[in-house]
Amino acid sequence: AEKMLGKVVEFSRKLKKLGQDDPRRIIHSLKVGLAITLVSLFYYFKPLYDGFGVNAIWAVLTVVVVFEFSVGATLGRGLNRMLATLLAGGLGLGTHRLATLSGETGEPILIAVFVFVIAAIVTFLRFLPQMKVRYDYGLMMFILTFCLVSVSGYRDDEVIKTAFRRLTTITTGSITTVIVCTFICPVWIGVELHKVVAGNLEKLGNFLEGFAGEYFQLSEAEDSRDKSFLEGYKSVLTSKGNEENMANLARWEPRHGQFRFNHPWKQYLKVSNLARQCAYKIEALHGYLQPETQTPQEDRSKIQEPCKIISSECGKALKELASTMKKMRRSSALAEPHIAKSKVAIENLKTMLKSGQIWKDSDILEITPAAAVASLLMEVVSCTENIAEA
Amino acid sequence: AEKMLGKVVEFSRKLKKLGQDDPRRIIHSLKVGLAITLVSLFYYFKPLYDGFGVNAIWAVLTVVVVFEFSVGATLGRGLNRMLATLLAGGLGLGTHRLATLSGETGEPILIAVFVFVIAAIVTFLRFLPQMKVRYDYGLMMFILTFCLVSVSGYRDDEVIKTAFRRLTTITTGSITTVIVCTFICPVWIGVELHKVVAGNLEKLGNFLEGFAGEYFQLSEAEDSRDKSFLEGYKSVLTSKGNEENMANLARWEPRHGQFRFNHPWKQYLKVSNLARQCAYKIEALHGYLQPETQTPQEDRSKIQEPCKIISSECGKALKELASTMKKMRRSSALAEPHIAKSKVAIENLKTMLKSGQIWKDSDILEITPAAAVASLLMEVVSCTENIAEA
Repeated sequence: AEKMLGKVVEFSRKLKKLGQDDPRRIIHSLKVGLAITLVSLFYYFKPLYDGFGVNAIWAVLTVVVVFEFSVGATLGRGLNRMLATLLAGGLGLGTHRLATLSGETGEPILIAVFVFVIAAIVTFLRFLPQMKVRYDYGLMMFILTFCLVSVSGYRDDEVIKTAFRRLTTITTGSITTVIVCTFICPVWIGVELHKVVAGNLEKLGNFLEGFAGEYFQLSEAEDSRDKSFLEGYKSVLTSKGNEENMANLARWEPRHGQFRFNHPWKQYLKVSNLARQCAYKIEALHGYLQPETQTPQEDRSKIQEPCKIISSECGKALKELASTMKKMRRSSALAEPHIAKSKVAIENLKTMLKSGQIWKDSDILEITPAAAVASLLMEVVSCTENIAEA
Repeated sequence: AEKMLGKVVEFSRKLKKLGQDDPRRIIHSLKVGLAITLVSLFYYFKPLYDGFGVNAIWAVLTVVVVFEFSVGATLGRGLNRMLATLLAGGLGLGTHRLATLSGETGEPILIAVFVFVIAAIVTFLRFLPQMKVRYDYGLMMFILTFCLVSVSGYRDDEVIKTAFRRLTTITTGSITTVIVCTFICPVWIGVELHKVVAGNLEKLGNFLEGFAGEYFQLSEAEDSRDKSFLEGYKSVLTSKGNEENMANLARWEPRHGQFRFNHPWKQYLKVSNLARQCAYKIEALHGYLQPETQTPQEDRSKIQEPCKIISSECGKALKELASTMKKMRRSSALAEPHIAKSKVAIENLKTMLKSGQIWKDSDILEITPAAAVASLLMEVVSCTENIAEA
């Protein structure tokens, strides 16, 4: 019994943490509850119920299925659902009419054939990449409604009424959902994407700022210090799928807040791809922090000065870019002095290395990579800089 | 009109390609059509129809919603749907009974409160990561069925019958779907995962085999040659989300083919994570192929021999690992000689570099990284080797 209790406590602690991490989750849950309760009023009030009949339940189901965390996702699903229902309902009615013409025995056979063919074709269409990205749910709804109307038409004489009621209930449900989702504490996926991309640049910046200190062991004593900044960049490495998904959903959103029409979603993906390139370089740099692959301290310290400047200035530049991005400015003025400084440092480092004197007698195994990667990083930073964004 | 025609032609060409790339897609589409037609027979045959009534349409809808490309995904959805319907149906009946006790005016209010609370709680639970991964669909179905039973119970006097029919129709639909999906040309997601992971190792191997030739420009003349092997590894970099998703779905599958119980899905993820680490190193190597960051040819050629051996032997080792993996063997015997050879080459390279004579007067900017990365690669390969898998 005590074990059970422990589990329950642990579970509730998890739930609490979930809510604290992002209070919008709690709000979202309440919004879903609200929307469902609103729609189910159709059932409770006699005048409303008489309009829809038993089919009113479809409105409730629509809310459950369509309501997503972000406005973009909800709108996408709602539009998909309404459009698919409309088209498939029409097609289903047509099929039903056609099948009825063919007499009593022919009818079920013809309907079965139609259902088979349409279901197979639409399922195949769902594999098309451009369909999958935006209309996958709509295509599924299409099959669903088509089957519903054409198959149930065989037993139900009021097939037109059924189709029409399904359309109205689903529209009611979708519109209620979209309204609740958009007007009560909305979560814009576009804003989320914006934050994620800016956050990624910031993580990279954090790593670079801290890297030199770590590499040259400038602060040996405080090993207990927080090193999370060294790991932050890892999430950037694998963020691709997530960001693409967000950009797809963001396309459904109307303009809002500080965003104009023509949202620069593609720009975001571009920036985030460049950030990922940069993160790969950083992953390589991170590898050189392992103690077993390190150059002796004395050799390392010889290139310490320029490397320190490069890495910290690069880091600052990225962080400036991230913060201008957060402020929705289209400028890289704040980042430029940092970039210029790190370029100077790179030149210094190059001449130092070219003179060929500093490591004359040492093992050529470690330092150069750091410098080389830093210079590659420079390219990435200037690339990022070029893509100005709103 | 001609423009339209051109679009249609292009579209149909796309569809054709889609089918040719993976003929299982066509089979899948036909399977979906078949399952839907089978289930809709309930509607056409009077004796079957009498058993289910109008609710038979739920069985059809279940097929549309549950049928997925792979067995794992279908089973997961089917089980989720059945279990959620069962639990939520029970809870909905309980709510209905409780609400009825409270009299005419209290009933709708009580139901509305219950629906609001349950919907909000379950929606919140969907955010729990461990729930999201495996039971997301089930939780949604839970809200759906609960609303259906408790809300519609207010107007429908045969609420127990409704709940029971919904359960039986959904079970029928799910079972039909699973049977069609599993027994007609099944697509096992576990097998897919297996192929993807082995394919990733192979891509890395291909790159490494070709890398030395490219880097030292051993075959300058044939620049028109196919260089796709140099790009293949890129997909490994971002494969993480996809693979995790597959492993989650694969857990639903029963044992089949050459797989035993206790499927080593976690092992796959481990291997594929290591492969990704390796791919990051390779990304760094790839950067050194850019002409603008290259060492003069003469300096490069000095370390040509050992580097060539390291990279091609590493590549062979990875490819051997991939092929033993494909054959479902748990051994790395075929890869070991290659690994040993490349280890010898690494030692040679190290002594060459330690002697400090070869590049005495050259610019220390390019060669070392390649060697350093190759030695890091070695670690990764031996890591991969250690994780023996079925």
